[in-house]
Amino acid sequence: MGEDSNVTKLFKLLQENSTNQISKALDDIHPADIIDALDEYEGDRTLLLSRFPIEVLAAIIEEAEDDEKGELFDLFSIEKKKEIVNEMASDELVDLLETMDPEEASDMLDSMDEEDAQDIKELMRYHPETAGGIMATEFVAIVDEMTIEETLKYLQTHGDEAESLSYLYVLNHDEILQGVVSLRDVVTTPFDAQIAPLINTNVISVKPELDQEEVSHIFTKYGFASVPVVDENNKMLGIITADDILDVVLEESTDDIEKMAALSHGEGTYLETGVFKLSKQRMFWLLFLMISATFTGVIIQGYEQELASFVILAAFIPMLMDTGGNAGSQSSTLVIRGMALGEISNKDYLIVLYKELLVSGIVGLVLAFVNFLRVWLFYKDIMLALTVSCALIFTVILAKTVGSMLPILAKKLKIDPAIMAAPIITTIVDAISLIIYLHLAKLLYIGKTLPIS
Amino acid sequence: MGEDSNVTKLFKLLQENSTNQISKALDDIHPADIIDALDEYEGDRTLLLSRFPIEVLAAIIEEAEDDEKGELFDLFSIEKKKEIVNEMASDELVDLLETMDPEEASDMLDSMDEEDAQDIKELMRYHPETAGGIMATEFVAIVDEMTIEETLKYLQTHGDEAESLSYLYVLNHDEILQGVVSLRDVVTTPFDAQIAPLINTNVISVKPELDQEEVSHIFTKYGFASVPVVDENNKMLGIITADDILDVVLEESTDDIEKMAALSHGEGTYLETGVFKLSKQRMFWLLFLMISATFTGVIIQGYEQELASFVILAAFIPMLMDTGGNAGSQSSTLVIRGMALGEISNKDYLIVLYKELLVSGIVGLVLAFVNFLRVWLFYKDIMLALTVSCALIFTVILAKTVGSMLPILAKKLKIDPAIMAAPIITTIVDAISLIIYLHLAKLLYIGKTLPIS
Repeated sequence: MGEDSNVTKLFKLLQENSTNQISKALDDIHPADIIDALDEYEGDRTLLLSRFPIEVLAAIIEEAEDDEKGELFDLFSIEKKKEIVNEMASDELVDLLETMDPEEASDMLDSMDEEDAQDIKELMRYHPETAGGIMATEFVAIVDEMTIEETLKYLQTHGDEAESLSYLYVLNHDEILQGVVSLRDVVTTPFDAQIAPLINTNVISVKPELDQEEVSHIFTKYGFASVPVVDENNKMLGIITADDILDVVLEESTDDIEKMAALSHGEGTYLETGVFKLSKQRMFWLLFLMISATFTGVIIQGYEQELASFVILAAFIPMLMDTGGNAGSQSSTLVIRGMALGEISNKDYLIVLYKELLVSGIVGLVLAFVNFLRVWLFYKDIMLALTVSCALIFTVILAKTVGSMLPILAKKLKIDPAIMAAPIITTIVDAISLIIYLHLAKLLYIGKTLPIS
Repeated sequence: MGEDSNVTKLFKLLQENSTNQISKALDDIHPADIIDALDEYEGDRTLLLSRFPIEVLAAIIEEAEDDEKGELFDLFSIEKKKEIVNEMASDELVDLLETMDPEEASDMLDSMDEEDAQDIKELMRYHPETAGGIMATEFVAIVDEMTIEETLKYLQTHGDEAESLSYLYVLNHDEILQGVVSLRDVVTTPFDAQIAPLINTNVISVKPELDQEEVSHIFTKYGFASVPVVDENNKMLGIITADDILDVVLEESTDDIEKMAALSHGEGTYLETGVFKLSKQRMFWLLFLMISATFTGVIIQGYEQELASFVILAAFIPMLMDTGGNAGSQSSTLVIRGMALGEISNKDYLIVLYKELLVSGIVGLVLAFVNFLRVWLFYKDIMLALTVSCALIFTVILAKTVGSMLPILAKKLKIDPAIMAAPIITTIVDAISLIIYLHLAKLLYIGKTLPIS
């Protein structure tokens, strides 16, 4: 793809400050490639950046990862910052302002056109992980009495500012959304035709309070390039574009995966995160789970006498605990992911419970059978084989029930279901299955082997 | 959003077979909503579907989930099937043909226009999870000597077939890709301007063999609406669109999450999957891990004498094992996700190892300190506290090293790194940390307490 050589050529032109060649070179280079090259640039970044046109600087800041935005922005003088802010798309500007201290942010807003500043302030009121928090206010509004040619002429003068031109929005005089026309339909229709027949009045829109994960379900269902955001009166507020949703989907998946692995929320990439920040991200859950796990020690001590006489019983504890942990994490993972993709909802809990009971019965029986054969052949002790295998069935059923129900319960209680994943499930299942196992051992195995106690 | 009532109205019209009103109602309804309503339709689906126009049926099949496509398609007669196939987009048709038995697929291909069939056969040669496997061959090619008006007129006659119009591709007479123009630039430029200055010759393209996950990295980096696929001579083969990539990203994340939770690959949603299929998805890994875990039993038996005399030692086994499992799964998860997002590559293994050693040292010390206090206060036995805490530090360091290195090693060996996640890491770390713990106990604890054995 040969991006590197293009950027290298550009940087050379910038160092020589040959202005007219710079803008030509810039035309063909994507801001994302400039950011990559800046990361590795060893000269004076501030000097180099000062030679870029303002709109390219704005594009670079827009394109940068959330955690880099502030860092790059701080390379500029306050005057330059104000110019950049005026060039940025509203949704990206909101993200940038949220990384600043409030005083600097309000300074930036004061430097803007009053109407634009008002738009930005309104956007900042929405939670960053809702439709309102990720929408942009730059879209193209049209009226329904135009021809194709008039529409195209209107785009030639008014299209430049929009975040996306994939759809044109038909609004009435009160800014109420009446319908939508795809640009694709506009450009495949003869110039002299009317726009009206192309308008789809059955518009799929979202409210600004909708969680971004649910917004992503709309995009995956319909495959749209953008979706309008409207208020309760159907007044058009902004649009959300598919490339923002790609980021949302990746972010939400990563969040869930991290929670499932007992990690606190981390910002930035692994390689760019310092050792102390990485340690902090892991400490809380490890401590919490370590302390919870001490409960299993108390249980084992309760059966000290039995275990002292029959150490063989201890030999199966790790296998039982691992199998319980794995069986539970399978169920919780399927339910958590199903809820994240919008395929399972709270009200499905009975179907899920029914399925998990059947599945755990089948899986538990097969595992118990294999385990029975192994223990019997290895130890020539049928009661031992029976005890361990019974405990195994109970453990699998328990693990799958707890693993599937806790995420649903969490969602019901408005807690993030992803927390109810492998680590917590394992801790809970460990303790209960240990009690079942040792109790069963006392009843079945020790009872038959030593008819006293 | 009121989709339901629109679809209900449509179905009523279809039942009455009022043809001219049907096509009007269809204009405003998205095929995804028709699929949802069909799922719940209680009448004769075949009869209802027979009244849809062919292009709507094609859109419905295109829009359906991979596992529903074949099911819906089989509702039609062989003649209708052939008509539908002729209306479908190439990338979607390939997916559909791959679900059919070879004979039916070749029958369908024979019914098509020879050139189109040839295109489809070539697409089917690519692995479904590569750029070639997800691209469509319908794009708009233009030459560089047109005005904006001529370009738009060309779109009016040739734009309908394209999978996406977001970009127009400038090809020479040998179909070699010369440059790209965004539709956005076309519609915001005056009619009489030339197209040439809008052409970006620095095109970012992909080769057909590229893995779909790496294709998704291009989209997340640049935010494109589509990306061209070219062969080694830069000959244009097709395009990949952003909505397909959204599916890829979700699919790849779900795959990784499933593997991390010891689940085999599952098709379809949880609620739609039968109990036996769900059981099968879970059985292999549970059996494999259960049998692997029996190794820990052998280790415990090796220390039977020590454990019989000091059952208290067994009380710490679950806590050590759980902490090791959690610590290892944190590291493997961060590395697996980092590799999936293209943030960590094989050659970073030394940096990762260095970071994990430092992090595990810090985390291990904190955990060991808390644990030391707890055991000391609770059991008033400083040697016991020391033994367990030392074992804990070793376990955390071991778990994080193994957890971070195995996914990188797997990738190096061309195995999917996501397999090297919590379940396998836990099994390996359990065994080694148990040996370390019991050996330490023999040296530090039993040695000091009972100076014989």
